[in-house]
Formats: sequence, structure tokens, C-alpha cells
Amino acid sequence: MKPIQVGLLGIGTVGSGTFKVLQRNQQEIRRRAGRGIEIAMVADLDVERAKGIVGEGVQVVNDGRQVIANPAIDIVVELIGGYGIAKTLVLEAIAAGKHVVTANKALLAVHGTEIFAAARAKGVVVAFEAAVAGGIPIIKALREGLTANRIEWIAGIINGTTNFILSEMRDKGLDFGTVLKEAQRLGYAEADPTFDIEGVDAAHKATIMSAIAFGTPVRFDKAHVEGITKLAAADIRYAEQLGYRIKLLGITKRRDDVAGGGIELRVHPTLVPAKRLIANVEGAMNAVVVQGDAVGTTLYYGKGAGSEPTASAVVADLVDITRLATADPDHRVPHLAFQHDALADTPILPIEQVVTSFYLRLQVADQTGVLSKITTILAEHDISIDAVLQRESAEGETKTDLIILTHDTVEGRMREALARMQALPTVLQPIVALRKEELS
Amino acid sequence: MKPIQVGLLGIGTVGSGTFKVLQRNQQEIRRRAGRGIEIAMVADLDVERAKGIVGEGVQVVNDGRQVIANPAIDIVVELIGGYGIAKTLVLEAIAAGKHVVTANKALLAVHGTEIFAAARAKGVVVAFEAAVAGGIPIIKALREGLTANRIEWIAGIINGTTNFILSEMRDKGLDFGTVLKEAQRLGYAEADPTFDIEGVDAAHKATIMSAIAFGTPVRFDKAHVEGITKLAAADIRYAEQLGYRIKLLGITKRRDDVAGGGIELRVHPTLVPAKRLIANVEGAMNAVVVQGDAVGTTLYYGKGAGSEPTASAVVADLVDITRLATADPDHRVPHLAFQHDALADTPILPIEQVVTSFYLRLQVADQTGVLSKITTILAEHDISIDAVLQRESAEGETKTDLIILTHDTVEGRMREALARMQALPTVLQPIVALRKEELS
Repeated sequence: MKPIQVGLLGIGTVGSGTFKVLQRNQQEIRRRAGRGIEIAMVADLDVERAKGIVGEGVQVVNDGRQVIANPAIDIVVELIGGYGIAKTLVLEAIAAGKHVVTANKALLAVHGTEIFAAARAKGVVVAFEAAVAGGIPIIKALREGLTANRIEWIAGIINGTTNFILSEMRDKGLDFGTVLKEAQRLGYAEADPTFDIEGVDAAHKATIMSAIAFGTPVRFDKAHVEGITKLAAADIRYAEQLGYRIKLLGITKRRDDVAGGGIELRVHPTLVPAKRLIANVEGAMNAVVVQGDAVGTTLYYGKGAGSEPTASAVVADLVDITRLATADPDHRVPHLAFQHDALADTPILPIEQVVTSFYLRLQVADQTGVLSKITTILAEHDISIDAVLQRESAEGETKTDLIILTHDTVEGRMREALARMQALPTVLQPIVALRKEELS
Repeated sequence: MKPIQVGLLGIGTVGSGTFKVLQRNQQEIRRRAGRGIEIAMVADLDVERAKGIVGEGVQVVNDGRQVIANPAIDIVVELIGGYGIAKTLVLEAIAAGKHVVTANKALLAVHGTEIFAAARAKGVVVAFEAAVAGGIPIIKALREGLTANRIEWIAGIINGTTNFILSEMRDKGLDFGTVLKEAQRLGYAEADPTFDIEGVDAAHKATIMSAIAFGTPVRFDKAHVEGITKLAAADIRYAEQLGYRIKLLGITKRRDDVAGGGIELRVHPTLVPAKRLIANVEGAMNAVVVQGDAVGTTLYYGKGAGSEPTASAVVADLVDITRLATADPDHRVPHLAFQHDALADTPILPIEQVVTSFYLRLQVADQTGVLSKITTILAEHDISIDAVLQRESAEGETKTDLIILTHDTVEGRMREALARMQALPTVLQPIVALRKEELS
């Protein structure tokens, strides 16, 4: 059978990785797919650079529309990124009856509903394994591997840049700003790192996993998003002393205790017990923990970014589509794991209704009765204490750090307690409050 | 559409888990599969117990052939185990045109080639996610998630019983026999634990993963299999001091350095650096590390056995088959990941040709020149030393333990060196030699 013809929109890091992997492993891939897969056409604004990568045999143009208009192209791979021209071209490719593979989490987390509906109407596939956790086949695990389960929650290290920064902060005891500069120098952080360090990238990925896990539309606008920019080296140290590591986690959780059901969807720095496998995922690596009611805890680990790891996911999607290219659309896995007419509109809960435990660091005046006042406030808000760590203040010091770990509580209640504690004259600095998850 | 009708052969631990999960999550599963999945008929020798599990609505018989002969049954799930009647019934189900789901690793590792050929001839699927690592979707990851890659090696903790025993031996400093009894009392080991503790079960699973990874037939008879029965608490302690944990690993590795290519396939206790995630997989949990040329290192972790975790894999297969039940067989994933006419006969290398590093423990006479004699022998066999640990002998003792870690070497060479070292009069006891893998 004639090889499947692929058109590439954008040939940067992931695009060139995809080209290389398809070239190098073409035999291996054909032995699996039963049919060759070839990049036949590339669109990139920098035509000369693109030609340098793909050589003579591949047509290079500077306009994505020429790829989409080419009747020989079976699958369009969108690797441009962002919501702008990428969205337009993906929708045009679908309208032209092409299958689409994309690594664009931002696009799917925000405009997924529109894009999947368009694909369904045209009977084409939009595949996106590369959009979450790079080379880890987590979309396949969630959509196909765990179909027996009622998913209870997912918690993932799904942004390599921030995990690298947090690992370095812990290893070297450095502050955020210093490590960020090092990460930029090493290429682990971009010149404008906002999307990574503010948690937006992780929230895009968590949004996609949430929809697939719980059978809802994508709702990025409802996600609660906090980054790591305000994290102090002191908190990483204290957490360590208490047996925890701090990781930026994307979390989504089913909440059956809420009337009518609800879903938590949030990204924030999180204390995790140091003995959990995910707490030991270091550097730029990614890992996702999925809790299912039948399977229990499963974990998926690997490289979440980079040229060939991400290409690994793009090519896996190409093989899947190749296999099902001539099949009835009913034989395909639904875009969001659940049949489109079986999606639910279970609400994403506001952050005030989220249930977690907390790590609190209070700088307090070193005088009698401070701890009592604080624990009284917590008790009055029905928040129970798991552990207290009070640093002995040095000779002549008049203030000290008080660290409190709480048991699970509703966030709204904690916010009220925090406001009252902050108003105490013996609390000298803004209180640091970080969420904590036992993940068990 | 009418629900897919499933017939169960055997309703023990996994069978009852499968029934429970399909019942409890029937809504969720239908929302995903687009069609209900129902257990319509069960065959079990203990009809009364089976009726107690499935209740009134399901027909229970004591003869698997009645299930196979029932024209209403679309998929037969074989959960009997072993090579005997299970093999006969699987082949008869295939001959009757039924799709088959099985958790039977022994059957597939030994008779897979015959079974897959029969299934192909009849255009039916034999699905076996549950046969390796229980609820972890590792077969799907290998067959579909990593199709872009030339797999380089796989190393897995794929037997929960032995991992539980090794974890307990390390935690509590106990000997194998003591912990085995405890494991039997707790239900982590069977009354006859031979298949687990001798590494046979792990070898069945490694055999299946090897075939899928490298595109070869299953060849259990060529696997090198060692269990954990001879492992001493002392070696676990010394390994720990050197920064290693001992795990029973199933390993399969592509060897391009051998003329014509070769594959290593082996199960044995293995020293692994303590900092690797897989070294921290404790108790009865399973984990598989897969190294691909594009994706790099990935790891998959979860429960490798038990009623509902294994059922999770069985039901995932049922959903996959439901989706493709009416599709052209060409649209399905090939049984062994590679198209049947693209399988290679790359040989499994004999253990003498395997390349690993080694941990050696020698009980030696505590006298001058012993270390020199031993290191000379190693040097003469071109085996280089990575680390030496010599326990200081207590006052008045005339013998001491000498621990040596080597760099990578061919096993045959090590065997020759071991024979020469063993013949030294200053070597007082049989030398303990364990393989070591850096997994990087």
C-alpha cells in the first residue's frame, strides 16, 4: 500500500524531531503500522532552514494552506503552537477532510470543544498524545488503558521547566530567581518563561487530562492556576524537614461529596510525601499519577518535552491514524475518551470549595501565647492540625518561624482562618500557605 | 446497539473482579465504549460458588465448551490459567470465531505463536493486557504508545510476590525462608510459590514483552531464568552499602553489537542503583522501564496482580475489542505489535553472551596478597573493577568478606574468571555472583 502522506506545519524542535524519527525508524515503523509513513510536504516561514532539515525529496513551502490544499496529503501535523494561525489552520485542515495531529495543548485546552466538534462533523481524527507530558503515552493510558475505571484523581508533574527549577532550588538551596537564570542559560527555560513558571502550561495539560478522565468538555477558563515564582527556599527546606518535597502539580479530582458532583482542576506548588515515587521525579522529567477505582494507583514517567521525546508521541499518533485511516469513524477512540453525546457538564468547583491539607509558615513574635492564639483560630474554623514545627529562635532574636501542617479542610474555611491569623499583631509577615496532598 | 456479550471461563479472583468492575462501572464503560459490555455466561467447575458471585441474571455452567458454543457470546475471557484445558478452550473459542481475552502469560509465552496464528486465520483478536504487570497498561504502551521507537531494552519488576519478599528482606534484615512464610501467611505468596520465587512467572511476562518490543515470535524456552531462593540477607546489606538495591528483574535487550543482531532475555536478581525510581518500587507493586531511541527512558508503575487491578486490564481489552468488533482485521493492532509477516527471527543469545556488570562476594582468608590474586585473575580476563569493599575482619577472625563491583563484561568471560577464583585456596566458600544493571 502507498505510504501515508504527512504534511508538517512548522518544523522547529518537535517538527525536526518528527522528521528524523520517521526517517531513522522507517523500517521499524512500517513493520508495525503495515504501511509506510512519509513526510511529503513542510510549511515553515523559514523555508531555507526547513530545506536544510528535510533535504531535496520533500517539498517546502512558506504557507500552511498549500499543505492543506494538497490532495495527496492524508494527515496534517500542526506544530506551530498558540491560538492564532494554528487554530485557523487546524480548522481549515479539518474542513479539507484531513486528519490532524497536534502537540498544541494551549489550543486544545481553550478551543478543544470547537475543534473536536468540527473533526467529528467531518469524520476525521484530531490526535494529541504529544500535547500532554511529551513522550509519555498518558493520553493513550487514560483514553484506552484505563477504560475499566472510574478515575478518581490525577496528579502530575507536567511541566519540565518548573520541575527542573524546583529540583535545583532544593539541591542547591538557591532562590527562584537565581535558578531561573541558570535554567534559561541551559535551555530548560525560555527567554519569556511566563507560561511555564506561572503554571499556565501545566494548567493547559491538566485541563485536557481532566476532560478525558471525567468525560467533560475542556474548560481551561475554570482552572485555578498558581505558579512557582513566589516560592521561597525556606519553604522547600522546612518541607524537607517534615518529610515532604514541593512539586508543581497539575491536579484534577472527582468530588462525589458535592451535591450533583463536582471536579477540582488546579495547578499550584504542592507538598508531597518524600517517599512517594512522584516526589522523586527530578530535573526536567515528567510523571503523572492516575488513581482509578479498579486499578488503584498507577504512575507514568518519562521526558515531558524535547525534540525526539515529543516526536515519539507525534509518530505514535500517526501510526494510530494510519491503522484506522480507512475505518469507520465509530471504530475510533472518541477524542475525549467518552462518546461525544455522553459528555457530562459536571461543574469545575471554585477554589474555595477545593479540599486539601495545608502547610503554613508564619513569622511570629517569640512570646508566650502566640501558638495558642493561632491554634484556637484554626480550631474555631474546624481545621485540625497534623504537625507543628517551631524553630527555636536564636539568642536575642524576637521573632521565629512557626510551621503548621493541617489535615484536609475546605479551602474557603482556611482562607477565613488565614485572614484572622494575619490580623494578629504577633504575626509579623504575610503568612505563607501551600497546599499539601498525600496522594495515597 | 445491543451490549457486547461476554462469556467467562473461570470465575476466581480475576474473574470475580472482572464481573464486579463491569457491573459497578457499567455506565462509565458504556459512555466510553459507545456500547454496553455484559457478562452473559460463566463456566466454572464450582457452579454454586459462581452463582453466588454473579447472581440470577447470568447463566452458569460447569463446561467451558457450552460458553464457546453459545452463538450469542461475542468475546470469551479465559481466566483458567496454565497450559492444559486453557489452551484447548482458547483454541476452540478461536475456531468458533470468538474474540478472546486472556490473562494467561504462561500460555502465551509458550504457545503464543500457535494461538496468534490461529486467531489471525479466523480474523479474531486475542487480547492479553492482563497477562503482563496486571493493571499497568504496559502492553498498550509497548504496542501502540511507543510505535515511533526502536526499543533498546526493557527491565521490569513484573512479579509482585518476589518484590514483596525482597522488600521485606531489606526492610527487616530477614532471610528468604522467613519472609516467604510471612508472604504465604499474608496471601502474597501461594502455597506452592515455585513459579514466582524461581522466576518462571516473571520470565513468562518478559518473554511476551520481548516479542512485542523487538518484533519476534515468543520464545520462552530460550529465556535464562533465575529466582531469588538463594539470595542471602548479607548481599542485600552489602548492596545497600554500595548504593544499590536488589530486585528480581525481567530484562530484554537488543544487542546490535552481535553479528546479525541478538536479543537478551533473562530473569534474575539484579543490583540496581538505589536512586533509580524502579529501585524504590516496594512491596507487591510492579514497574516496567522501557528505553526507546526517540523517547528515552519511560517507566510504568502500578499493581501487578490482584482481583480488580487485573480486571482493569481485562476490561480495557474488552472495550478495545468492542470498539473494533465490526472493523476490518487490518484496522487492528497486530498481536505482537509488528505485522505477522514482518516478524524477525533475531536469536535470543545464550547467557554466556549476555553483557552486564557484576557484584561478587568472596569469603576469603584474611591474609596478605589475596586481593592481588583476585584482581589479577579479573584483569587477565579483561574484567575491570568499579569498586571494592573489604570488610574489616574482627579481632581474631581469619576470614573476611570481599565485595567487588565490576564494569560491564561478557558473562562467559566472568564465568571463566569465577572458576579460577573459586579454585584459589584462599577463597573459602562458593563465590556469590549477582548481575548489576545501571539502567541509564
